[in-house]
Amino acid sequence: MRATTIHAPFDIRVTEVPDAALRDPSDAVVRVTHACVCGSDLWAYRGVSKRKPGQRIGHEFVGVVDSVGPDVVTVRPGDTVIAPFVWSDGVCDFCVEGLHTSCAHGGFWGSPGSDGGQGEAVRVPYADGTLVKVPEGTDPALTPALLSLSDVMSTGHHAVIRALAGPGPGPDGWVAVVGDGAVGLCAVLAFRRLGARNIIALGRHPGRTAIATAFGATHIVAERGEAAVAAVRELTGGHGAHHVVEAVGTEESMRTALAATRDGCTVGYVGVPHGGSAGVDIADMFNRNVSLRGGVAPARAYIPELLADVLAGTLDPSPVFDMTVPLKDTPDGYAAMHERRALKVLIEI
Amino acid sequence: MRATTIHAPFDIRVTEVPDAALRDPSDAVVRVTHACVCGSDLWAYRGVSKRKPGQRIGHEFVGVVDSVGPDVVTVRPGDTVIAPFVWSDGVCDFCVEGLHTSCAHGGFWGSPGSDGGQGEAVRVPYADGTLVKVPEGTDPALTPALLSLSDVMSTGHHAVIRALAGPGPGPDGWVAVVGDGAVGLCAVLAFRRLGARNIIALGRHPGRTAIATAFGATHIVAERGEAAVAAVRELTGGHGAHHVVEAVGTEESMRTALAATRDGCTVGYVGVPHGGSAGVDIADMFNRNVSLRGGVAPARAYIPELLADVLAGTLDPSPVFDMTVPLKDTPDGYAAMHERRALKVLIEI
Repeated sequence: MRATTIHAPFDIRVTEVPDAALRDPSDAVVRVTHACVCGSDLWAYRGVSKRKPGQRIGHEFVGVVDSVGPDVVTVRPGDTVIAPFVWSDGVCDFCVEGLHTSCAHGGFWGSPGSDGGQGEAVRVPYADGTLVKVPEGTDPALTPALLSLSDVMSTGHHAVIRALAGPGPGPDGWVAVVGDGAVGLCAVLAFRRLGARNIIALGRHPGRTAIATAFGATHIVAERGEAAVAAVRELTGGHGAHHVVEAVGTEESMRTALAATRDGCTVGYVGVPHGGSAGVDIADMFNRNVSLRGGVAPARAYIPELLADVLAGTLDPSPVFDMTVPLKDTPDGYAAMHERRALKVLIEI
Repeated sequence: MRATTIHAPFDIRVTEVPDAALRDPSDAVVRVTHACVCGSDLWAYRGVSKRKPGQRIGHEFVGVVDSVGPDVVTVRPGDTVIAPFVWSDGVCDFCVEGLHTSCAHGGFWGSPGSDGGQGEAVRVPYADGTLVKVPEGTDPALTPALLSLSDVMSTGHHAVIRALAGPGPGPDGWVAVVGDGAVGLCAVLAFRRLGARNIIALGRHPGRTAIATAFGATHIVAERGEAAVAAVRELTGGHGAHHVVEAVGTEESMRTALAATRDGCTVGYVGVPHGGSAGVDIADMFNRNVSLRGGVAPARAYIPELLADVLAGTLDPSPVFDMTVPLKDTPDGYAAMHERRALKVLIEI
């Protein structure tokens, strides 16, 4: 079968790889119909995150179940399914608590020895604990929205859940999102979905801020760094926002998010940290009682709730996809995202 | 009048200073009867925190109101009062929200231009917003417990509030306290007060761990660093504690606290950060969804609730005081705490 592989920085290819096949009794094989490129894939693309030459890549996909092992009971061949960006056994303490990303048997698509999402098929370990079935008869036009639940919308939702659960007035207060990538935009949508009425989106790319506005942002701050913090404070009566999402992962974005947060309130962060802890000013956090909460999103815990809203027509993150390529042109998709010509690329297999 | 002043590292004196006097209509002058030395005072003593030569020091005190300005309505001359370790106006947004430490008009005893707590009297700005009156007829034997509310017990309580408010089972789960200083011990007491039943205290000083046990610790971990983390994980079924307090402020203690925390759970930190952010491993926090919440304790918000328990006889943090000196011997108190001969020194004025 064909799948996307990474060989060196900026060297992404679509190559022949061994067919995905059942191995363990709890496995399923899913024929991928749609995948996409994540902002975090770009860290590998740029060589910042190391990969083995020839390693598989891609961790977001929807598809149709091709075959299942004898222990699988929740999905059958022919079912359309959403895969969260990590697999999980579904039965350990952490999975039961909703933190599937800490499952002791969990793993990340494309890690050595596993299939990546950007390919024709994937062996799915712990299919019952991992896959979420999409009801039969679902409108195919919803597929991009379903695909977004695999990672980007679930991740934006996670950031918002973390930011809102801290001290502060909740959705009635001021909320802000640092980062105008697809995750940041989904966080705007998640804030709106959970009732926020004063939503500040920080971003300067007109196409992206237009999506932010469509997703519910009431204020756009185009400044960066200290000027952005000053703008947020000006909007919020001098004090900063109550609930702030950090959706980039750089030192600067973390610094901006913490500084833009009102004393006593909370940053929810989901940007994969690439700046180390340098952006975490613990002395300022201490003096102002600012909390820091976040991490890798347990998408599997969120998909059922978000899926219900997608099916009901009340949640549509699909505008984050602004470019579609066939599998063979996946490298072009990476280049387009790297060069910021595309916000997020959907891959039709 | 006489008050404690700091002149250089390890040079603490009791000297003549100008008498405390009313200046603004909302001021009170409090004749200090009891003060104490804080672990954070030792950072100044050791020269790590810079002070102006001759600067006043001390931020924990109880006393009797000597005089009040014309705007003061909640306390009268002759009232016994507890002073939180910062003053606050009591009416701004932050004070109303219970975050008196972020009051725009607030300040710290002993900062340049203000009186310190380790002296014969203190001018108290915003007396109505700052002081908490102790009921007439209160047993003088409770004075050390009342004094502990000024900072150390309120700070331990704050750490626990922050740690418990995060994800996790709350008091029914495993809780742990990193640090066997007076604040850490008060955090043990605060966990117990709020219903925790499985309380791990990390510390190796036998006199202190004995207090921890008396305060409610059910398990003592004497190891440090990675060995301490391993011991906590062993006690907790391999996963770490649900609610962890960091009560030291060093890089190592923060690292230990975060690593000893179960995935998805929370560190409440109140140790004044002296290690910068080096102990904050943001990548590990991200991968495991560990939250970091804490900061300078809004003691003024907590004192009424804690005072009620002290008066009811259900809360007694006074065992943290294991040495008492008269004002003139305050320098000996600093030396004793610096050399770990004393846990916390009470000063009788």
